[in-house]
Formats: sequence, C-alpha cells, structure tokens
Amino acid sequence: MISGTAEQQPAGAARAATPEKILDFQTSPVCYQHWKLSITPPVARLTMDVDESGGIFPGYELKLNSYDIGVDIELNDAVQRLRFEHPEVKTVIITSAKWNMFCAGANIRMLGGTNHGHKVNFCKFTNETRNSIEDASTYSGQRYLCALNGTAAGGGFELALACDYLILIDDNNAAVSLPEVPLLAVLPGTGGLTRLTDKRMVRRDYADIFCTLEEGIKGQRAVDWRLVDEAVPGSKFADRIEAKALEMASSSDRPAAAQGITLHPLQRRITADAIHYVSLNVTIDRARAIATLTLNGPEQAPVADLDAVIAQGDEWWLLKICRELDDALLHLRFNEPAIGTLIFKTAGDLEKVRAHDDFLNSHADHWLLREIRLYWKRTLKRLDLTSRTLFAFVEPGSCYAGVLAELLFAADRTYMLEGQFADTEDPAPPANILLTESSFGPCPMSNGISRLETRFLGEPHSYQQARALIGQPLEARKAEAAGLVTVVMDDLDWQDEIRIMLEERASFSPDALTGMEANLRFAGPETMETRIFGRLTAWQNWIFQRPNAVGDRGALKLYGTGNKPEYDKTRI
Amino acid sequence: MISGTAEQQPAGAARAATPEKILDFQTSPVCYQHWKLSITPPVARLTMDVDESGGIFPGYELKLNSYDIGVDIELNDAVQRLRFEHPEVKTVIITSAKWNMFCAGANIRMLGGTNHGHKVNFCKFTNETRNSIEDASTYSGQRYLCALNGTAAGGGFELALACDYLILIDDNNAAVSLPEVPLLAVLPGTGGLTRLTDKRMVRRDYADIFCTLEEGIKGQRAVDWRLVDEAVPGSKFADRIEAKALEMASSSDRPAAAQGITLHPLQRRITADAIHYVSLNVTIDRARAIATLTLNGPEQAPVADLDAVIAQGDEWWLLKICRELDDALLHLRFNEPAIGTLIFKTAGDLEKVRAHDDFLNSHADHWLLREIRLYWKRTLKRLDLTSRTLFAFVEPGSCYAGVLAELLFAADRTYMLEGQFADTEDPAPPANILLTESSFGPCPMSNGISRLETRFLGEPHSYQQARALIGQPLEARKAEAAGLVTVVMDDLDWQDEIRIMLEERASFSPDALTGMEANLRFAGPETMETRIFGRLTAWQNWIFQRPNAVGDRGALKLYGTGNKPEYDKTRI
Repeated sequence: MISGTAEQQPAGAARAATPEKILDFQTSPVCYQHWKLSITPPVARLTMDVDESGGIFPGYELKLNSYDIGVDIELNDAVQRLRFEHPEVKTVIITSAKWNMFCAGANIRMLGGTNHGHKVNFCKFTNETRNSIEDASTYSGQRYLCALNGTAAGGGFELALACDYLILIDDNNAAVSLPEVPLLAVLPGTGGLTRLTDKRMVRRDYADIFCTLEEGIKGQRAVDWRLVDEAVPGSKFADRIEAKALEMASSSDRPAAAQGITLHPLQRRITADAIHYVSLNVTIDRARAIATLTLNGPEQAPVADLDAVIAQGDEWWLLKICRELDDALLHLRFNEPAIGTLIFKTAGDLEKVRAHDDFLNSHADHWLLREIRLYWKRTLKRLDLTSRTLFAFVEPGSCYAGVLAELLFAADRTYMLEGQFADTEDPAPPANILLTESSFGPCPMSNGISRLETRFLGEPHSYQQARALIGQPLEARKAEAAGLVTVVMDDLDWQDEIRIMLEERASFSPDALTGMEANLRFAGPETMETRIFGRLTAWQNWIFQRPNAVGDRGALKLYGTGNKPEYDKTRI
Repeated sequence: MISGTAEQQPAGAARAATPEKILDFQTSPVCYQHWKLSITPPVARLTMDVDESGGIFPGYELKLNSYDIGVDIELNDAVQRLRFEHPEVKTVIITSAKWNMFCAGANIRMLGGTNHGHKVNFCKFTNETRNSIEDASTYSGQRYLCALNGTAAGGGFELALACDYLILIDDNNAAVSLPEVPLLAVLPGTGGLTRLTDKRMVRRDYADIFCTLEEGIKGQRAVDWRLVDEAVPGSKFADRIEAKALEMASSSDRPAAAQGITLHPLQRRITADAIHYVSLNVTIDRARAIATLTLNGPEQAPVADLDAVIAQGDEWWLLKICRELDDALLHLRFNEPAIGTLIFKTAGDLEKVRAHDDFLNSHADHWLLREIRLYWKRTLKRLDLTSRTLFAFVEPGSCYAGVLAELLFAADRTYMLEGQFADTEDPAPPANILLTESSFGPCPMSNGISRLETRFLGEPHSYQQARALIGQPLEARKAEAAGLVTVVMDDLDWQDEIRIMLEERASFSPDALTGMEANLRFAGPETMETRIFGRLTAWQNWIFQRPNAVGDRGALKLYGTGNKPEYDKTRI
C-alpha cells in the first residue's frame, strides 16, 4: 500500500510569489487536508475526510464532509494522479471517513458568502472534475465505484452520480438527496439534474419528487428509482464493495505491470503581471484587460522510442506544456477575473512540434501516451469553457502544428500575418500552420465532435479538404482559403487593426460576451457535458443572481440562521 | 385578392371584462395595426408596417418597424390564420412597407422599461412564433420567403432567420445585423445566435465578427457568410421575389382548391378569478397561487365524415378546445405571473374523446386535420415551456384519452384516484386513462421525441408496453403499473395528501422551480428549439438580470440617451 508520492512539495508554495492570496490548483497527496488516497492494486480508495477547520476562505466550517474549492482542488489532483501515476489502478472507490455521512455537498455558508464570480467558477471547476472522473472511466480504463457508507446530500450525491456504480448502505439512515431546491432555492448545479435525466434516466415525475424532498430517499426505493445501483445492508457492505471493485477492475485494459510517472510540482514563477512556466509564458496587460499566453515549441526533436518518453515522464514536452496550460487557465479564471481577453501565441519550430505530435498519435495505444492525449483533450475543453474572449495570433516564428493548431480552432477568431514583420531586424520567416491527425478525432469538444467538424458544420467539403491538407505547411493565404483562419493581414495593417479590434472587444459588456461566446462556440450536437454547461449552468447562474437565492432575505443567505427565507412569488 | 376575414371582432374586446388592462392574444387581420396581409394564391404577402404610436405600453414609439408584444401578437395570429384559413397559400412573403428598413428588432425602450418577467415572457412568445413559422414550413407545406427590402437589425434579422429563404436587396445600404452585444449588452435572444450556428451554420469566427459588428453586413459578403441566400439589386428585386415565391410554392402539398375554415373570436369570459371558455374553465385560487384548468370532453360523438368536420370548422371540439387551451396558457403566462402551479383536470366521456382522437388520427393526411394535429403539437409544446409547476389530477369523471392524455405526460407529476370519492352523492365511476396513437408520434416535444419516449428513456420496455396498451381503458393500478401516473391514492388519503403537496410546492422559490423544471422536463435529445429555450434563453435571462444590461448605468437603460453605459469589467 502506498500513499501519494513522497517528493511533492506542499500546496501553496507558489502563493508567496505574489503578495495577494491566490487560489493555487497545484497540490499533491502528501499535502491533502481533506482526502486520503490509498492503493492496493488494482483498487485505489479515495476517502473523503474533510478537515472542518480547513476552509480556504474564512467564515465557515466544513462540517459533515461539505466542501469548498480547496477540497475540490485536492479531488481534481487525485483523479489526475491516479491516471498518470497509477496505471495499475483499475477501480477507484470513493467513500467517506465520517460516521453516517458520505458528503453533505458544497458548503452553504461558503456559497452564501462568496461573490457571483466565485460561485460560477467554483461550479464550473467542480463540474469539470466530475466530468474528468467520467472521462477516466470511459477512455482510460479506470472505473469509479461510489461506496455510499452514509448520506449523500446535494453536491455529495452529485459526486456519486459521476461514478459508474453506486452502492448505498441500507441501514435505515443513509439517504441520497438533492435538497437544493427546497432548502437553498438554487439548483443541484454540479451536473445533478442533468445526470438524473440523462445518465441515470430517472423518470421525470420521480425526479421532480426527488428534487423537492429534503430528506431524500433510502434503501430499495433509491434502487427502484434508479438513483443508486444497489442498497446493501451494513453487515455485507464492505464485502460487496470489495467484490464489486474487483469485478469492475477485471474488464479494464490498464497494464497491471506498468510503472507510472510522477507529476512533479510545476516550475512556475508568478509575478505581478506575469506567470512564467518552462514552456509557457503568460503576460498580463491590466490596462487593456488582456493576457497573452505564449506557448513555446519543443527545443529537441522527440526521443526515438517509447521507453525514452516514459523515462522523460512529465518532462516530455507535450505533457509538460499541457500541464502548464491547464494550470494557467485555472489561474486566470480564478485569480484574474478582470482580464477579458486571452491572446494565444506560439513560438518555435513547426517541424519539431509536428514530430512530437506524430509520435503521440502513432503510440496512442500505449497507456501513457493515451493519457497525454486525453489530458490535451480535457485541457482544450477547459479552454472552450473559459468565459473569456479567445484570440489566436499566427505570426512569423509561430509553430501551430498538431494539438497546438487546436488553439486556432478553439479561439473565437484567428488572425494570421501574411509575410514577415518588415521593421524587425533579422525577421523570422513567414508563419505556416500544420494540421495533423490531432485535429480530426482525438480531441473532441464537449459536444462530442472535433473543433474542425464543428467549424465546418455548414460546409462538409471544407472539412474533407482540411483533412487532405494534413502534414502540409500552410502559409497565410492557403490557410485562409482552407477556412482555417479568420483574417489574414500584412505587416502594413497588422498593428493598427489588432489594436483597434482589441480596444473594441474590451469596450463590450463582459456579460454579453460571456453569453454570446457560450452560444457560438458550441454549434452542433449536444451531449450530457454540453447540457451541464449550457442548460443547467446557465439556469443556475441566473438563479445565482436572483434575490430569492442571494438577497438578504434569500435562502442561501439565511440558511442555518433559523430564519425563513422570503420569496418574491412571481414566476419568471 | 383578399385581406383577412370580415367577421372578426376588434382586438381587445375582452379586455373590458376585467378592470385591469390585460394582454390579449386574440386579434384578426381587420384589426391589425402593424401588419398587412394580402393574398394572391398561391402566395401571401405579410407586410410589416408598424404604427409608431401603436405601442402596447406607454413610454416608447415603435420607430423603424421595431416591435413590442402587440406587434408580435398580430404576427402570431397571421401565421396561425394562414394555416387554417388559407389552404391555397403555399408561400408566404414577409417584407416591410418602410423605406430602407425591413425591421429594427424589438423596441429597446420597451425592453429597458419593462420588468424582468415581461422581458422573459416576451422573448419566449416571440421565439414560439418564429418556431411556428418553421413548423408551418416543415410540416404544413407553407413556406416562408423573407424579402429583405431594407436593413434587418437584431430581432428583425432574427425574424428573417426563421424563414426558409432570405433575399437581401443589394443597394449599398441594406444590411443584416445582430448588434445586440455591442449596442445593448444583451444577446440576440430570439433564436438569433442558435439559428446562426445551427440553421445557417455560419462559421463560428465569422459569427463572432458578425455579432459584434454594429453596422452589420451587406450584399455579397452576407451571401458568402451564409447570412442570407441571395443579394439582388433593387432593379431585379421584385421580380426575383415573385419568381422565388412561385418556385417555393411549386413543391407544396397544400390543396389549391380547398376552402379554408374561419377562426372566429373565442367565446371567452374573464372574471376576477376565472376564465370561462366553451370547453375549458380556468379557476384561479390566488391565496394558494394555483390555477385549475378543467378541460371538458365533447358532448357528441364525432360527426361521421370529413365534410361534416370541415363544415363544423372551428366548432369541432378538438380544434375549439385546443384554441382555448392555447389562449389560456398565454393569458396565465402574461397576466397571472404570481400563479405558480397549474392543475389540469378533465371531465367528460372517455369514449367520446377517444372517438374524436381516432377520427383525427385516421384522417391526418387531410390538410385541415393535419393542421389540427400540428396545432395540438404546438400547444402542448407551449405547455412544456410554461414556467409554472404542472400537475395533472385524474379523478372519477375524467376523460384523459388521446391528446388529452398528453397532459398527464406534460405534467411534472400526475395523481390518480383509485376508486371513487366516497362522500359524494351519486359518485362518478372510477377514472380510466386511455392511450391512443396520439401519444406515440404526432405530438413530439421540442426535443423531437414523444413525451412517453422521453419519460421512458431509461426503460424502453415500458415504452413498448405502453404502446401495447393503446385503446385499453386503464384504471389506477394498471396505469401505475404501466408507469403512466406518478402517485395513486384512494379516497382516504387524497384530500390531505394533495393539500399538503400543493402547500409545499407553493413554499419553494419560484426561481428554483423554474430552473429545475426547465432541466427535468427535457431529457434526451436536443434540437435547435430546445437549444433556443435552454442554452440561449437561459443565458439571456441571466444577462437580463445583470447591471451591465439593466442597471441604471446599463446599456438597455441608457440606449438612445447619448450617455455611454458603464460596465463592471469582471468576467463571470
């Protein structure tokens, strides 16, 4: 049995880099305050044991395994490490160390005390983490078993719903419930409503009763309504969990004998207006509300064989830069809310990026490279769901190939320079874009299809044409003709046009942009994920603005005070 | 050429029935203030000519063919009458009587001046009307050609987007635009964003540019970006419209020689706490925030043949009660915002309802009965989208058969009494439910599948089982076993349980219920319609609460004053 990896540094080490307290998404098992990770292959046990006094903000206690963003940062880390560090783990049991209580959900006083922006970002991140649990199960052979050894309420049951299989202890006490509507006047917004209807496929009238029943549902009735898969008496609970975990592990394709890699702490330096990683630099222009993210291509060609990549581990460029991008996006979401526009740039050797990307795709059936591809997929999804304007600039010296080219199609607009910058000494050669297989399948958006397929819904011939261009460096006019970039300009227009465009964007209402982008980015099919981030989240965000929830007499504000909320009875 | 039907009464006649001003959705062509309808078979021309001083509320002028709910009530009426009264019309041209201006969209001062509830209901109704245009085109053989003889801005272009084919005059002046984001800090919320991405399939980066470009796009570029289908010079515009209208008509299956029926004014009496129609009674219990809608079955068996039904016209029970239900739902939405729960009841002879329903389904290829079926479909969709709790009660004497049984599956919960009411003199016999083909195809929800298919997503065997029960009267325990009702109770429990349940429902936050119901009602597939009412509308409702749009310094409030809005720059 092992517990975490020993060489991790404490969470929050980077916080000292800036005088303000920032939310840090880097942590590791030895630093966990709220979870215990123990592994007996092929099964891992992830036990929730929230430290009441360990809230990340002041003003509330995390009683009854309730959680705040700090608890979920650890969960996200554990889910991620289990994939990369533990190929031998085929089933993950999520359970609780508390007596009679699995998890009481998001901490209500935290929700009542934090601002609208934090509530929305908190829900988005917790949703992404639960989606990543389902991603591990569907694509990575690491299945999740929820051992409900006590009551799961609200977000606690939503966490359970993200697992493949739910076993509830049948002890006349433990219940599952979604009491948000009756108790708090908000929705079960961490996927709860959507997973009820679309994953568990609970009949809608039963779902209606369930979501208005404070005390929830126990035992066999919970099974009958498809809320859980089994209800098992306490005397048989542990054995049944153990047996089911092994049964679930038996169908996994994860390699029992493989050695995991270690995810070391990111090398990151946060200054007042920049974040420096190894392969990614983020600069922040507060006056213009812009952050520029420059992704640097690899310095070397990829190593020749799989063993060498495994030996490089998290130093391998395609994994390193993905971790850095993921961290930077989370940092910008939570710690830089006034930065409305993210500009993406790349710098490096197009051919080296292509070579790394080709290596990734040609070894995608190896467990580690599969994980790296899946991580890129999730990180690009996180980008799609980042409520900031996304622009990509393709300038001389850039290296948009393979997964980096996906940045062009994740962006709301892409600007490409034709030719070179004339007034530069020793100007870099004109930029090219290079498509690989990475744009045609491995990195679908949350709508289930690739960014290019989404982009070309109205012109399937353009999609086929783009596929035929795989491997060919495309200069500006060719990229434009293929529909891969939005605007092509030469050096004479570039500076002024870009400046005006950025000023104009910054002049718009941030809310209107958020709503517009959330609609324009996700054309085509809907999936459970898009429904969670579209329908469910948008309604929840609306409710998070309503006095019935967040006003001085609203339910979130008065919960636990003994005072009854007062509702405006108008139906909207 | 005919213009409307002569025997219609003026709009608003019913308003005198209640001392307060109510919004009335009944009108007719002779009363139109804002539209002109002229017909030269097979083409109808619906010309927007908004009366500037004809706003339905005080405080704004309807300049430049901008619209408020009053303008859209007339449009809805016209679209409806064209289907029922004019089988000979195969193409409808929508155009404008104003110089250089097709339509400037929803009136901004109206939007800035009305409360949140009206804004939301206004958008929902205008969306439903645009969807009904598409419904006429897809299912009724009546196609819509938009003759953009001037600029179409915002809601004006959204109306155009609902048409099958858009021809823009190419005169260096007329543009199409969606300037809501840059000008007003709200979304193009009448389906605009969704139809851009999912109907016109505009490339997302072009859509981003288009939606941030105040002045819009003209001429060939509008064609290139798939915003319109053709751009035609003024000299050829009229001829091209004429030719295209006839071409579109040529593929219609509407019967040129058939005689339409007249939709007479509804017989309706509105009192302080009730609305009395012929076959529908609505009673309002303000203290408990409940409206009870009792639909009365037909008194006679259906007439024996098609000619007799055509002769009955809008007196035929299945059409009459559908019109009454549609009107009642709109009335309750707009005029009774504090009524949080709608209870459905039916009263009548189950066999007579079945006979009417069977007649409808066995003659569904006749143009008029097709229209009646499609109207039931749309009205039931309107019910699904009504943001009130929906309960159906199945009591002795009820007649839930055929389309009326759909009320049971549209409801959030259905309660059925087992046996009879004991303390009643001459008690009615126990209730039965009776399924017909109407529940298995003709009335899909906006998600594209039937209510029973949606209900039984998680148990397809129950769907098949229900289909096998077509035509069999099902008493309470059989209906429960088939999964068709939520709760079955006997007389001993009924009164108390129902009372407690209704009190509990009324104690919840109306906002939380609206969000919960909007999620639980629409499991399964998403369509353009569900995306409009889910994703787009939910985001718009959120924005309609945000100070950046509706605050004292927000864009909607300051538009036209010469003052620039001030935005909180935080991105949510």
